[in-house]
Amino acid sequence: MPETVRQEDRRELASAYARIRRLSEQLCQPLQPEDMSLQACADVSPPRWHLAHTTWFFETFLLVPHLPGYQPVNPAYEVLFNSYYNGIGEQYPRPQRHLLSRPTQQEVMHWRHHVDHAMGQLIVSRPDLDALITLGLNHEQQHQELLLTDLKYSLSFNPLAPAISQPLTSDGEPAPPLTFQDFTGGKIQHGANADEPFTFDNEGPQHPVWLSPFRLANRPISNGEYRDFINDGGYRRPELWLSDGWAWVQQHHIQRPLYWQADLLNHWTLAGLQAISPGQILAHVNYYEADAYARWAGCRLPTEQEWEHAARQSKQPGSFVENGRYQAGQASAGLLCHMLGDVWEWTASAYLPYPGFRSAQGAVGEYNGKFMCNQMVLRGGSCVSSQNHIRPSYRNFFYPHHRWQFSGIRLAEDG
Amino acid sequence: MPETVRQEDRRELASAYARIRRLSEQLCQPLQPEDMSLQACADVSPPRWHLAHTTWFFETFLLVPHLPGYQPVNPAYEVLFNSYYNGIGEQYPRPQRHLLSRPTQQEVMHWRHHVDHAMGQLIVSRPDLDALITLGLNHEQQHQELLLTDLKYSLSFNPLAPAISQPLTSDGEPAPPLTFQDFTGGKIQHGANADEPFTFDNEGPQHPVWLSPFRLANRPISNGEYRDFINDGGYRRPELWLSDGWAWVQQHHIQRPLYWQADLLNHWTLAGLQAISPGQILAHVNYYEADAYARWAGCRLPTEQEWEHAARQSKQPGSFVENGRYQAGQASAGLLCHMLGDVWEWTASAYLPYPGFRSAQGAVGEYNGKFMCNQMVLRGGSCVSSQNHIRPSYRNFFYPHHRWQFSGIRLAEDG
Amino acid sequence: MPETVRQEDRRELASAYARIRRLSEQLCQPLQPEDMSLQACADVSPPRWHLAHTTWFFETFLLVPHLPGYQPVNPAYEVLFNSYYNGIGEQYPRPQRHLLSRPTQQEVMHWRHHVDHAMGQLIVSRPDLDALITLGLNHEQQHQELLLTDLKYSLSFNPLAPAISQPLTSDGEPAPPLTFQDFTGGKIQHGANADEPFTFDNEGPQHPVWLSPFRLANRPISNGEYRDFINDGGYRRPELWLSDGWAWVQQHHIQRPLYWQADLLNHWTLAGLQAISPGQILAHVNYYEADAYARWAGCRLPTEQEWEHAARQSKQPGSFVENGRYQAGQASAGLLCHMLGDVWEWTASAYLPYPGFRSAQGAVGEYNGKFMCNQMVLRGGSCVSSQNHIRPSYRNFFYPHHRWQFSGIRLAEDG
Amino acid sequence: MPETVRQEDRRELASAYARIRRLSEQLCQPLQPEDMSLQACADVSPPRWHLAHTTWFFETFLLVPHLPGYQPVNPAYEVLFNSYYNGIGEQYPRPQRHLLSRPTQQEVMHWRHHVDHAMGQLIVSRPDLDALITLGLNHEQQHQELLLTDLKYSLSFNPLAPAISQPLTSDGEPAPPLTFQDFTGGKIQHGANADEPFTFDNEGPQHPVWLSPFRLANRPISNGEYRDFINDGGYRRPELWLSDGWAWVQQHHIQRPLYWQADLLNHWTLAGLQAISPGQILAHVNYYEADAYARWAGCRLPTEQEWEHAARQSKQPGSFVENGRYQAGQASAGLLCHMLGDVWEWTASAYLPYPGFRSAQGAVGEYNGKFMCNQMVLRGGSCVSSQNHIRPSYRNFFYPHHRWQFSGIRLAEDG
Repeated sequence: MPETVRQEDRRELASAYARIRRLSEQLCQPLQPEDMSLQACADVSPPRWHLAHTTWFFETFLLVPHLPGYQPVNPAYEVLFNSYYNGIGEQYPRPQRHLLSRPTQQEVMHWRHHVDHAMGQLIVSRPDLDALITLGLNHEQQHQELLLTDLKYSLSFNPLAPAISQPLTSDGEPAPPLTFQDFTGGKIQHGANADEPFTFDNEGPQHPVWLSPFRLANRPISNGEYRDFINDGGYRRPELWLSDGWAWVQQHHIQRPLYWQADLLNHWTLAGLQAISPGQILAHVNYYEADAYARWAGCRLPTEQEWEHAARQSKQPGSFVENGRYQAGQASAGLLCHMLGDVWEWTASAYLPYPGFRSAQGAVGEYNGKFMCNQMVLRGGSCVSSQNHIRPSYRNFFYPHHRWQFSGIRLAEDG
Repeated sequence: MPETVRQEDRRELASAYARIRRLSEQLCQPLQPEDMSLQACADVSPPRWHLAHTTWFFETFLLVPHLPGYQPVNPAYEVLFNSYYNGIGEQYPRPQRHLLSRPTQQEVMHWRHHVDHAMGQLIVSRPDLDALITLGLNHEQQHQELLLTDLKYSLSFNPLAPAISQPLTSDGEPAPPLTFQDFTGGKIQHGANADEPFTFDNEGPQHPVWLSPFRLANRPISNGEYRDFINDGGYRRPELWLSDGWAWVQQHHIQRPLYWQADLLNHWTLAGLQAISPGQILAHVNYYEADAYARWAGCRLPTEQEWEHAARQSKQPGSFVENGRYQAGQASAGLLCHMLGDVWEWTASAYLPYPGFRSAQGAVGEYNGKFMCNQMVLRGGSCVSSQNHIRPSYRNFFYPHHRWQFSGIRLAEDG
Repeated sequence: MPETVRQEDRRELASAYARIRRLSEQLCQPLQPEDMSLQACADVSPPRWHLAHTTWFFETFLLVPHLPGYQPVNPAYEVLFNSYYNGIGEQYPRPQRHLLSRPTQQEVMHWRHHVDHAMGQLIVSRPDLDALITLGLNHEQQHQELLLTDLKYSLSFNPLAPAISQPLTSDGEPAPPLTFQDFTGGKIQHGANADEPFTFDNEGPQHPVWLSPFRLANRPISNGEYRDFINDGGYRRPELWLSDGWAWVQQHHIQRPLYWQADLLNHWTLAGLQAISPGQILAHVNYYEADAYARWAGCRLPTEQEWEHAARQSKQPGSFVENGRYQAGQASAGLLCHMLGDVWEWTASAYLPYPGFRSAQGAVGEYNGKFMCNQMVLRGGSCVSSQNHIRPSYRNFFYPHHRWQFSGIRLAEDG
Repeated sequence: MPETVRQEDRRELASAYARIRRLSEQLCQPLQPEDMSLQACADVSPPRWHLAHTTWFFETFLLVPHLPGYQPVNPAYEVLFNSYYNGIGEQYPRPQRHLLSRPTQQEVMHWRHHVDHAMGQLIVSRPDLDALITLGLNHEQQHQELLLTDLKYSLSFNPLAPAISQPLTSDGEPAPPLTFQDFTGGKIQHGANADEPFTFDNEGPQHPVWLSPFRLANRPISNGEYRDFINDGGYRRPELWLSDGWAWVQQHHIQRPLYWQADLLNHWTLAGLQAISPGQILAHVNYYEADAYARWAGCRLPTEQEWEHAARQSKQPGSFVENGRYQAGQASAGLLCHMLGDVWEWTASAYLPYPGFRSAQGAVGEYNGKFMCNQMVLRGGSCVSSQNHIRPSYRNFFYPHHRWQFSGIRLAEDG
């Protein structure tokens, strides 16, 4: 392989590194310094912590083991910003991340630059680490999504309703009619092919599965459709709910999606309180709500195998704004639309390893594998997902009670 | 169909009814009256409550709707002994079942006889209800198993270590060598066929699945093998555990299976404190422990599809005692043994509906379907399962943290 | 002192012992065997446990140390029935007392008789132990009261509303008009005099206190008066409540006294559900409610010094039934009435040691002293208190949130 | 009264107002902006919240009702910064104060200046409001103390151990020998006289009490003396503890004072981790620990009446630094020293109203009165108390389990 080609690779990776790292910081631009510490529950993290933890990833997994003479800025950060890697050691307690007023924002930014500088050296000199560096960049992109969803959640506790983005100026197209597309099933290949560019370990190995015939809705459920469910007593009828879901409804007195106000007319957004547009895509329901809605509608949720199989026929770009708008021209002739990049769609599949899945050796093997229990798979990516995470095989996963992601509903039926 | 045949059917069902109902009461024979109220946590129920709830099932789903003129003994029992059927109405709070000193044992027995008498009338006169009556009998048999596992748990809190059965007089055969049997996989039919005699709704519909090649251990793990795991630091090494499992270990300071004493030499049984026989079948581990053991052993747990596929080739009777003994002559030539009737085997499958599954209409539809979330499938039946629940397609399900069933481990590997 | 007199003392103590021990067992006569295990929360204990613990007291503090050759029936009982004496050793966890199905009722009764027989020997031979034996008997009488109040609480969780006593056949006299009696205060002697017959250690030593002038209500508040408070929004007006009281109201959604039904017309009693008589004495309010009622009425609660000072001028017998009736002829000319033996009256005094108080050496010193924190003093004795605990100096104490005793309200004012 | 005198009064109050308000802001000078949001538990508040709440007090109780035309900066602040005044209305949930990233620091400072400007007008024009303004200033001084104790607590959760003040350069004098001073007791006047300058409502009314003879230690207990208690097994001997105290020790595995490290050699201070000087005054123990120490030492804690009676004979200035140093020349001839301004001293008295105490009308009446339950009185003031709160009659109060104030121990004995 000629030298010039390899140098081009170096430049490309260095440029991607710079672009992605910079985006994390740009996402914090609309924030006040005081917002950088917000953490409203153990599930979410402060923006400053996200900036630090993504930096920790590069320092811990790349610089310390691979860059000779590299000195960590502060050895204590190894514990403070370790999220959950037991292979690295102790972790600062997750619910207390908001208590880390130090390192300050300035110190975290200094650390980022220190690490970025050292990473520059590594990128040019160690092409053998490209896969791990690329993992680090994809990791940072995942945290960019979390930074926004976490912040939306934490800001929602402030009665002053601070906005950090501009509201949409129009509602977009009305939701196209809901139709179902038929799939015949049979033996298919499921999961990411080893030949694809970057994918996470949990997306493979690709393996055969047998699909029974099924039908999939052409688009996600809209706010207006979900409001019909509420108005039909959806939250008061136990027969619509899974047992654990009904217990959750009862215990927390749930009556509507997260962020919806009691009037069912307004909801909390990154642009502050805004009117709920009935014609836009529903978000912020959890698995229990998605499952109950599907039962109410006489349908069910798709499995992740069904979803991925269908999605491979329908690929359109998502957009990095909190919009939820159905887009013109997407739903013609009953074709699937809005599969990718609008809202995470709950599937009926538990998050479990594919046949033949093996975690990587060492602490980085904890990335995905150890969470394969008690969570459900979501597919498709949302309006705040990174563009290059928008692919048919990507598996997101959350607990059934989680609502703070942009998570919605697509219906399925037996064929 | 000639009349005489149908009368034989009646007699047979009446006889099965009498036998099964009587067994519930016989299981309480070794107990002291004071034991009948024991409830050590919300997951378990007092023996008297089991006797009442199984009676409630027949009164609620059969006698009240179908036997003209039937008068419930006490209308309040409808709420008191409703376990979880929202379609019937309110339920007395589960964690408080031990507070129901009334109805007394005598009153519950009177109720049982009242219901049994009325059921006698229904059995002879309404052959169209046979399926529902059979469900009621299978339901009672499930509660016979729970009565024993719940009681074992509740009695374990008494330092006096009361025994309600006799200890085994011998340890049985030593565990045969652990070997693995190969399965080639491919397209198979999974789940109970509609033609089979009684099965629960969640066992079907039968449907095709594609299995990748796999290998399955010839027998369940023994106490001695699990002790090796403990002695190798199994409970102190986070890399062996799922994230939720490790959190569970840490939070509850878990160091050994339920009922094992700190010395790892004795465990609590229905015959009181007894020595742990290293050569007997391990029980009372939860999913997290089963999964961690499998990882430590360089293996994994089987999926329920793999397990059922293999079990259809290996069927031997279980025995209604708490024994855990490996049996002579079962493991020759690497054949699978102890698949059925010794210990529930955790599978790597989440408890979810099969394609095409539909719950029955009405409250009885809550029997199985609404629990299809957050639980894992166990297969095979245990030493305290009813003989006629021992079949390859039977799906038991518990939460990953549950340990009070006779639940053990069978290893699997990719083929 | 002549021998004959001392023999009379022996006979008298033996007779008191027999009478008091028998009463504990008689109190259980109306119960079903199943009731003997009831424990609805950690604060209350099962009837069988009360029978066992009072026996434990005699075995632990008298027979084991003082009767040569005495053999405990079962050494494990030392832990099982130790309530809170750290000086004796470990205690079986209080919230789990309902799990002690063994020893059975029969075994506990056997233990009682074994201990009673041995105590008979000790009583005749060791007059030097009279004080300790008398403490044991007063201890048993305290548990007789608790046995009834605990049972009332535990039975209240049963929707069948089982009655264990007969309802009153009449309401008694209407409440006499509420008036206040003046006291001039000044230097008084407070607490039990060392010359009095049996008193608990916490009732002394007697010591001078200076009382400012005050006025005390002639009688406890009635159900009807308290209903006025409720109807005036008493439970919805934070300005009437202590901060901790208001937090308690909010957290538990409190709207009425314990045992009152939502209609404010019926309440739970040991005779089952009964009509609330507006003219009877209020019971089952806690300190927060008593304090809020007093503030609503423009008054305050009396201190224990004020109460005792007044009570020494007003002594009338209580009656061992759950009645709450005002008695004829007690309230003439504004005299204090119903000070003793009707309802425990919350005072404004925290339960703290009197000047010069010293706990006894050894485990028996834990009897009262170690609870002198976080609790409030109640005075007067209730309808289920032992007759010989009804005295002006007796100090009962409970946490401010406790409601399951027969606890009521007497108002006071500055003089 | 001549006009000039009154103008001098105005100037003096305006000057006090300016000085005290400024001090709150100066206390935040050593902090990083990120520290301003710290709240490590519900009991403590973020520094920015303290700055806002004290401002809220002036706006709510003075400007809105009394300054014609005054416009609140933001009506939402009325809820956000209401601490506990139900008379004003709803309160933002206390445990979530750290979530108020808005108003930002800049906005809070703007609010402070807006209020200060308006208060300037009120001070010159409304001498009739002096008492209420003075209450507001004393209120702000109380929050200055809390700002420091809260911050010390919140910063202690950061493993980076940030310092916000300079460590002491010397240990000061060694602790003088512990001696006891006799007091004969008798009838005394207790509480603040109505003639004194500013006192809080709970310090009066003055009233007679009768004191039995007692003896009081000449100085607070030192770190070294408390370490002897620990080394003698103090935290492992239940006989030394109140029942609730022992439960607290067991539940939280307590082994040493708050902020002490496991080595008993270092402790957390506002100057970071520092060596524990055995000769300095102990702080950060709670009531349970103070009581247990006293019992271990064969003594008891003083009542607040005893303490105040003694303190009226011993008044020396405190110093606004976290020092804990015994001062030279204070302990000659067994005289009491360090009564005031070094460490809050737990008394054996529950926080209850004095005879004749009445809360003020309106919401400001909630200031002290509604907390008179479940808390214990502390006396003397600490190294971070405002100088002008240092007086014999000042009653501080905290729950028995609280440790985050500078709270220590002075022993007493019966005379």
